[in-house]
Amino acid sequence: MTGGLGFIGSNLVRSLHRAGADVTVVDALYPRHGGDRRNLDGLTAGDVRVIEGDLAAPAARSAAAEAEFVFNLAGQVSHVDSMTDPTFDLDVNTRNHIALLEELRAHNPEARVVFTSTRQLFGRPRYLPVDEDHPVAPVDVNGITKYAAEQLHLVYGECYGLPAAVVRLTNVYGPRQRLRDDFQGFLPIFVRRALLDQPIQVFGEGAQQRDCLYVDDVVECLLRAALSPDAPGQIFNVGNDEHLALRELAQMIINAAGSGSIEFVPWPPDRDAIDIGSYFGDSSKAKRLLGWVPETPFAEGIRRTVEFYRRHGEWYRCAHG
Amino acid sequence: MTGGLGFIGSNLVRSLHRAGADVTVVDALYPRHGGDRRNLDGLTAGDVRVIEGDLAAPAARSAAAEAEFVFNLAGQVSHVDSMTDPTFDLDVNTRNHIALLEELRAHNPEARVVFTSTRQLFGRPRYLPVDEDHPVAPVDVNGITKYAAEQLHLVYGECYGLPAAVVRLTNVYGPRQRLRDDFQGFLPIFVRRALLDQPIQVFGEGAQQRDCLYVDDVVECLLRAALSPDAPGQIFNVGNDEHLALRELAQMIINAAGSGSIEFVPWPPDRDAIDIGSYFGDSSKAKRLLGWVPETPFAEGIRRTVEFYRRHGEWYRCAHG
Repeated sequence: MTGGLGFIGSNLVRSLHRAGADVTVVDALYPRHGGDRRNLDGLTAGDVRVIEGDLAAPAARSAAAEAEFVFNLAGQVSHVDSMTDPTFDLDVNTRNHIALLEELRAHNPEARVVFTSTRQLFGRPRYLPVDEDHPVAPVDVNGITKYAAEQLHLVYGECYGLPAAVVRLTNVYGPRQRLRDDFQGFLPIFVRRALLDQPIQVFGEGAQQRDCLYVDDVVECLLRAALSPDAPGQIFNVGNDEHLALRELAQMIINAAGSGSIEFVPWPPDRDAIDIGSYFGDSSKAKRLLGWVPETPFAEGIRRTVEFYRRHGEWYRCAHG
Repeated sequence: MTGGLGFIGSNLVRSLHRAGADVTVVDALYPRHGGDRRNLDGLTAGDVRVIEGDLAAPAARSAAAEAEFVFNLAGQVSHVDSMTDPTFDLDVNTRNHIALLEELRAHNPEARVVFTSTRQLFGRPRYLPVDEDHPVAPVDVNGITKYAAEQLHLVYGECYGLPAAVVRLTNVYGPRQRLRDDFQGFLPIFVRRALLDQPIQVFGEGAQQRDCLYVDDVVECLLRAALSPDAPGQIFNVGNDEHLALRELAQMIINAAGSGSIEFVPWPPDRDAIDIGSYFGDSSKAKRLLGWVPETPFAEGIRRTVEFYRRHGEWYRCAHG
């Protein structure tokens, strides 16, 4: 698994380990990305093998060549960082994935591959809910580099038979998400500030809706995408059926935390330029082909999330604001 | 201008020079790409300044920082080569363009930019004619890397105000196209073989239609895209209104050359995997916003093309088959 020290990756590693799988993690642990060795606390080197390096590193390529399943989660997820260092974003999100795909094509073309993409590449939705046929219109460099990577997976499937599936994730939340800075989207910022009893800044009226998905539901979907005979060659939009406005999400987080408050502020210009309005996806294809359903309402998921961070205070205590 | 020693680039350079423009060309002259210093035969160093290097080279960046108009034509165009060396394709078609865009953003954000993209990124058309709203579905690495580059241009326009337009070209033909090998699409192969009085291999029945565009029509469109106040931020599908089947194109080339023949052969497997069936585009947006019209019927364009190559025998005499 690539990106296995990150938020979603580490939750997937734990699930695979519980199921008795032999797991090798490749993670570059880039600063500001979501990777953190503490995400695998409680698991030993005997439980899970960890290779520190990017996807193009020889050890990473060897591991890929031997894997039965490749969960390819590695990537840079910050939209703002993708604008400040677009070349790095391209290298991490696209160029290194070519190295991985070339390795698989040459030495392990039957590996089942699941690549995690993002709803970000749809840009501002033309219609809601957004299905897989919705036109792609990235609004930032990150959307472009992630789209290129997912399409590379599909082209390797089409041309070389590599059985790869693409899962386009909506905003995901839950335990082990990096809360300590502002580079991972609005949800960890909201959660951190509520836990610290600080005001949560909501831009504008906070009316934009999101279909936030609890990480356990994501893990279940990725496992099904790896195992289902119908998955290879397919793209799946994966989100929650529950659509909530940002201000509602903020209030529910505050309620779960028992602390924090909402502060409505005008849109900062740099965020306004890449905002996409409301987004919620149509997950019916994933439900139909993978037999998957999102099971965790936001109130329940955020309750578990807050409980996790209350037990692991170090995750937010060193926050910078 | 980037790619100014290539096929379309050199025709555009000549047109700009005739109009009295001060032209600087950046071209990496990669082997197997379309660049060739002979494409500017007859023009002196005083007429046109030529910088040999890729877009990320310091001299190329300095030139970009000073340009009033940037015609960004540099790229790898071979679909087959993009599959054999996908990392190189990404570097040349996407990564180096980030360097150019970063230079323009930082030092020349008012330069009018025209980026040449390709109809290849539509993949197999879902409907005909293909307009700008047609979903993108690249079938090879080249389609992915070109799409990423054009979207980067548009994101730099949206986020930083860089006035960039994207022209998605169909199959282009005419004088100065590289005929000597098989890496530039079917048209130069057909023309070379007819000129050499060899059989033109047509895959299958040759019934797939194309809207081949003569290079002078392309040059006119690029000039209008650079000058029109309505062009920045827009994508234009640019093709011919005349749609001809591959077997018709082959026969018309043979007629113009007065030599060659057609040989129908089964699809080779490696080409079959990335074939896209018929393609013709809807150029009505370019006509409406740019006031452009394709003026050259294929019979006339191919007559002029053959005439050029008859006068410049060296262009095809060293062909390898």
